[in-house]
Amino acid sequence: MTGGLARGEPAVDAVVVGAGLAGLTAARELEAAGASVLVIEANDRVGGRMMTQYVGGVPVEMGGQWVGPGQKRINALARELGVEIFPTEVPGRTVFHEDGRRSEYEEDGEVPFRDPGASAEVGEAFHALSELARGVSAGTPWASERALEWDGQTLETWKLGHTQSKGARFYFDLAVESLYACEPRDVSLLGVLSDVAASGGFGGLFEIEASAEEHRLVGGAQELAVRMARGLRGRVVLSTPVRRISHDGDGALVESDAGSVRAGAVVVAVPATLRGRIEYVPALPPVHDGLSQRMPMGAVIKCHAVYDAPFWRDMGLNGRAESDTGPCKVTCDNSFPGEDAGVLTGFILGSDARRWGQSPAGERKRAVLECFARFFGREALHPRGYAECDWGKEPYARGGYAGVPVPGFLLDHGPALREPVGRVHWAGTETAARWNGYMDGAVESGHRAAREVLPAGGAGYHPRTTPDDRDLSRGRPRAGATGTGG
Amino acid sequence: MTGGLARGEPAVDAVVVGAGLAGLTAARELEAAGASVLVIEANDRVGGRMMTQYVGGVPVEMGGQWVGPGQKRINALARELGVEIFPTEVPGRTVFHEDGRRSEYEEDGEVPFRDPGASAEVGEAFHALSELARGVSAGTPWASERALEWDGQTLETWKLGHTQSKGARFYFDLAVESLYACEPRDVSLLGVLSDVAASGGFGGLFEIEASAEEHRLVGGAQELAVRMARGLRGRVVLSTPVRRISHDGDGALVESDAGSVRAGAVVVAVPATLRGRIEYVPALPPVHDGLSQRMPMGAVIKCHAVYDAPFWRDMGLNGRAESDTGPCKVTCDNSFPGEDAGVLTGFILGSDARRWGQSPAGERKRAVLECFARFFGREALHPRGYAECDWGKEPYARGGYAGVPVPGFLLDHGPALREPVGRVHWAGTETAARWNGYMDGAVESGHRAAREVLPAGGAGYHPRTTPDDRDLSRGRPRAGATGTGG
Repeated sequence: MTGGLARGEPAVDAVVVGAGLAGLTAARELEAAGASVLVIEANDRVGGRMMTQYVGGVPVEMGGQWVGPGQKRINALARELGVEIFPTEVPGRTVFHEDGRRSEYEEDGEVPFRDPGASAEVGEAFHALSELARGVSAGTPWASERALEWDGQTLETWKLGHTQSKGARFYFDLAVESLYACEPRDVSLLGVLSDVAASGGFGGLFEIEASAEEHRLVGGAQELAVRMARGLRGRVVLSTPVRRISHDGDGALVESDAGSVRAGAVVVAVPATLRGRIEYVPALPPVHDGLSQRMPMGAVIKCHAVYDAPFWRDMGLNGRAESDTGPCKVTCDNSFPGEDAGVLTGFILGSDARRWGQSPAGERKRAVLECFARFFGREALHPRGYAECDWGKEPYARGGYAGVPVPGFLLDHGPALREPVGRVHWAGTETAARWNGYMDGAVESGHRAAREVLPAGGAGYHPRTTPDDRDLSRGRPRAGATGTGG
Repeated sequence: MTGGLARGEPAVDAVVVGAGLAGLTAARELEAAGASVLVIEANDRVGGRMMTQYVGGVPVEMGGQWVGPGQKRINALARELGVEIFPTEVPGRTVFHEDGRRSEYEEDGEVPFRDPGASAEVGEAFHALSELARGVSAGTPWASERALEWDGQTLETWKLGHTQSKGARFYFDLAVESLYACEPRDVSLLGVLSDVAASGGFGGLFEIEASAEEHRLVGGAQELAVRMARGLRGRVVLSTPVRRISHDGDGALVESDAGSVRAGAVVVAVPATLRGRIEYVPALPPVHDGLSQRMPMGAVIKCHAVYDAPFWRDMGLNGRAESDTGPCKVTCDNSFPGEDAGVLTGFILGSDARRWGQSPAGERKRAVLECFARFFGREALHPRGYAECDWGKEPYARGGYAGVPVPGFLLDHGPALREPVGRVHWAGTETAARWNGYMDGAVESGHRAAREVLPAGGAGYHPRTTPDDRDLSRGRPRAGATGTGG
């Protein structure tokens, strides 16, 4: 297991495991305070669950991409790095598809359910969730007075008690799938209430305007990670899975396929479910190990078709579709400004993702494009480029968008999410008190982890020799991206 | 990662990962059919979640220990190996402790709840679960007509709808904690119904007579594993965690800290949640990886006090206690026949185990013995030996008794539990169609995995050279057992 580097050197103040938004944020803050850092990333790229790729000649967002106005940390980071934001909103009508019937509705209009009462039902259910969430304190949901009651049930159970019509239930499911990439049965009611409290209202999560999806990032979200990594040049090692972290009162030893590094502290910035795939010496305490057994990733295949132009706009459509028939039950116009090309993005979510992920790629592509054609017309059948990312197949994400709290998880394991174990600290959007599951939460978690590691006062490290990334460059090549051109 | 053994040799027909009951059963059957096998075990002992240790001069059962009359496979194995069984039953009254009030009841008597209606309520709830379970086919619960409804809710939700009194709910919780080492909120209703279908009635699981706890094994349950391993001498390697399994059309390569072995097939016989801690090349498909994220282990600390004699029997007590106050809410007389000593065993379960597992050992021991004294008198405060096993601290179990199906797990991931991936096959009690979670299920799974690996017809292997266990003996020593003497 120990590789080419001699024991005892190189040594840094802190090793950060994972070059996603959380890890890079932590590394940057640690370095700014004078600490020597080394970031070790398993993938052959930085960005974690943010990944921007070129398809049909234009950038497309394979992973996290949206930014909301209430998300102060990600907005501040983008400004600092000189990455501009632009509004997501595309004017036009949304396509609605229910029971094989296609309709359209205006931005401010009512969803045209077959059952005329469904719309009010949905509104009431979302409102009721927001009201309940007032009883939950963001960041410490396990301390809520009714935590036991709320963490004892699935969101599905709550839904069945608070909606009646088929239409309302389909739309509720669609909202949950869109937000969590899982079914309402997979997530704890307390988990959802906690997220509402951490973000400001369930409806707000699902709408575009004044929501978590109001803005996007020029050049793509991964640009944030690329720019941070550039500032850390020489201290970010790629293609190097960390295998073991040993630690005691004197410090830590981080072992990877490419060698070992000593460190004063380690920040593990990976999804909670993947923490357990690193070996710890001594072994993690049962609650810390148990939490990595209980926060499974959602399931999502994000599918993109690139066209010569956003033809749906000429039809007065905004590229958004909501449907009870998949594979893509939700779509959006994901074009970048300044490009002629139009990009339609469809989400295959939860159980659908598991099923469709097992189909041959060609069959899945055909079904996705037929879906787009049902929503936006036959022109959708002939994109100039097509690509998709099944996040369950990404070896160092193993699902997306984020970890999902199952019933009972937060009560018994929530407090351990952020709790350090000796020299090991934890980051990642799942550990955030605000906007967990979003890019903003990842940034929060990186700041918090860095502050834990820093001596009281936030600075005081005397920089010492940092190992060069060439010291740890013998990582294995990783399998190619899942996107396919054409 | 690749160790001292040259690539390409040694080679075997099958490598079995894990020397618990499932893995050893598979290895034994494969070898009997003429296949060459190598069993690689991470611990420094065989037996997995069966572990018999000497405390105060007598054997005590740290892990799985009970056998029921309906469990044909484990009974047959015990007979074959010459391990005798003996009845668990101890005559006498059971102690019942509710709201600080201690009482006793006869074996055939009613539980003396403060609320006289609670007993009937509990009986009705257990009966209702058994009735529902008739709609579930053992081994394929996801195919049940009402699977979607049942897998969408926690057992807690069902309990709240089917019990009213505080007493009935406490007793229901106690039954679930005893059976699953988790709270009713942690487990899917479908999961529980599936287990009832796979074992024959909820009440039956909780009672001793004519149940899964009717018999025990002379010499301790681990004896089964020890005898099987003896028959496989030279083909069982200890203290060797497997790190990576690569496989393609030609075969598999199993890499461990101690070296690599080529194999025609691999049987991974570890708890489902630990499958993901081995690296696979190619990476596991999303559904297979996802299942290892969604079947967390229960939490249990099994506590044993050894006395010069089973003094409670002289008081007309059978050593069993049921209590709403912990740390041990359930106890039993766990003495072996033929020994003068008496053994009281108490279970700290679910949330209690997580909380008490963080206390200093001395404090926990004192609390356990005070618990025993509350049930059986002050003599219980002075055992001649005391030991406990927190299964969450066992590095290659990381919880106990078994994996718990969270809501939504069985629907989306259940079918993949037993589904091979290329050259990789899966065993372990979690994968059994009958008596999953029990020793009997482990044996079933080992047989099934062996049959998958064997050529059609069940035999036909031509034995070839098997590597000696000395080839793979450079494993790291494992941390000591958690039991403490005295």
